[in-house]
Amino acid sequence: MTSTDSAQNTAADTTGNAPAKAPAKDPWELPDVSGLVVGVLGGTGDQGRGLAYRLARAGQKVIIGSRAEERARTAADELGLGVEGAENAQCARRSDIVIVAVPWEGHGKTLESLREELTGKLVVDCVNPLGFDKKGAYALKPEEGSAAEQAAALLPDSRVTAAFHHLSAVLLQDASVEEIDTDVMVLGESRADTDVVQALAARIPGMRGVFAGRLRNAHQVESLVANLISVNRRYKAHAGLRITDV
Amino acid sequence: MTSTDSAQNTAADTTGNAPAKAPAKDPWELPDVSGLVVGVLGGTGDQGRGLAYRLARAGQKVIIGSRAEERARTAADELGLGVEGAENAQCARRSDIVIVAVPWEGHGKTLESLREELTGKLVVDCVNPLGFDKKGAYALKPEEGSAAEQAAALLPDSRVTAAFHHLSAVLLQDASVEEIDTDVMVLGESRADTDVVQALAARIPGMRGVFAGRLRNAHQVESLVANLISVNRRYKAHAGLRITDV
Repeated sequence: MTSTDSAQNTAADTTGNAPAKAPAKDPWELPDVSGLVVGVLGGTGDQGRGLAYRLARAGQKVIIGSRAEERARTAADELGLGVEGAENAQCARRSDIVIVAVPWEGHGKTLESLREELTGKLVVDCVNPLGFDKKGAYALKPEEGSAAEQAAALLPDSRVTAAFHHLSAVLLQDASVEEIDTDVMVLGESRADTDVVQALAARIPGMRGVFAGRLRNAHQVESLVANLISVNRRYKAHAGLRITDV
Repeated sequence: MTSTDSAQNTAADTTGNAPAKAPAKDPWELPDVSGLVVGVLGGTGDQGRGLAYRLARAGQKVIIGSRAEERARTAADELGLGVEGAENAQCARRSDIVIVAVPWEGHGKTLESLREELTGKLVVDCVNPLGFDKKGAYALKPEEGSAAEQAAALLPDSRVTAAFHHLSAVLLQDASVEEIDTDVMVLGESRADTDVVQALAARIPGMRGVFAGRLRNAHQVESLVANLISVNRRYKAHAGLRITDV
């Protein structure tokens, strides 16, 4: 009984001390992303609109994408702050970083249709595949393992990461809220890419981007939203997450 | 695209305001658990031993369980603080609350063999089903959905909850660490039971128990440990979690 328990804890606790695995560079040394254009697919939804608002408010150039150009323009005009609206394909083409904030139901189809426009782009998937019934929310398991892995499978020529799963759309959109008190778990296969996403998260006051693993471990991060919904119900809160000791 | 995104966010953000669902009682009003005996199955492993140490240090009566009585007694003697050691069945029989901290590999078999001793007991599963390879840790998906749901299936006459998944065994066992800076996500089907587990977590200085949903949402909480392992590697940390806004 003891051995595997110890092995697990050893892996969790002491791998950070293994010199061979230790990263040479400071994990908090992140690139300057202030000049990058950020597109938000599904930017007319609450989550996308909230993220667009926060990033634009932090000084980032933001383009909201929607299937309907008119709707995107309307949402952009409402936000102000230099935000533009465009049809999804145009939004993807013009952006350096493309945040995917579409509903899970349209996730695969939308990404498949934008494969060309997203070639070479840094894609940030923030979609949470959830089901809802009388007992509340529950995790849906995509065939690929997670929404992020579905994105990676559909976009072999893009740089797919996952982040921004646990944010409250209410807090994001509330202009009277100055700081968003939360860490953002950032997942991906390439250090250069996750560094950029972490830096983007850090543009928003109160927010911090923390590397939290590879895409194969995205499912639990995506579906943890079901638990935060339970927390919000019980405590009448807009729960976020902080990672301690980092 | 917008509608489901909005629906999801509505569920996440506003259900707390739905009067029909609002709990009548203060969610922080928790029972006094100081007189309950806590057993720790797998208490000779790092995680179990760490939890036993912290609970005993907080004044709780603790019994460490192991397949081998002798090993349990040795571990208990090393901890002091009134901790006793016993063979698993005896440990379960004598305890009011039984924490399951065995390795995932022995989880099902151990619980099945203790069905009788665990009848009527409050069982707290803290097992994380993980696999490890060259790329690090990854989630294993138990047939029942999670370790906690496996426990519930094997122990129909026990009150099964899940908690204590994200703790660093290193910090738990380090006597120089005064406070464990983390929240404990507590899952279960019965409010009375999760309240007891939350109260037990709150006995440990720095720790807070937060209700985080039903057992069907345990898988992502269990497997999030894989992400914390990645965090620990990147930042050379012993990461924990805090839930903000509650």
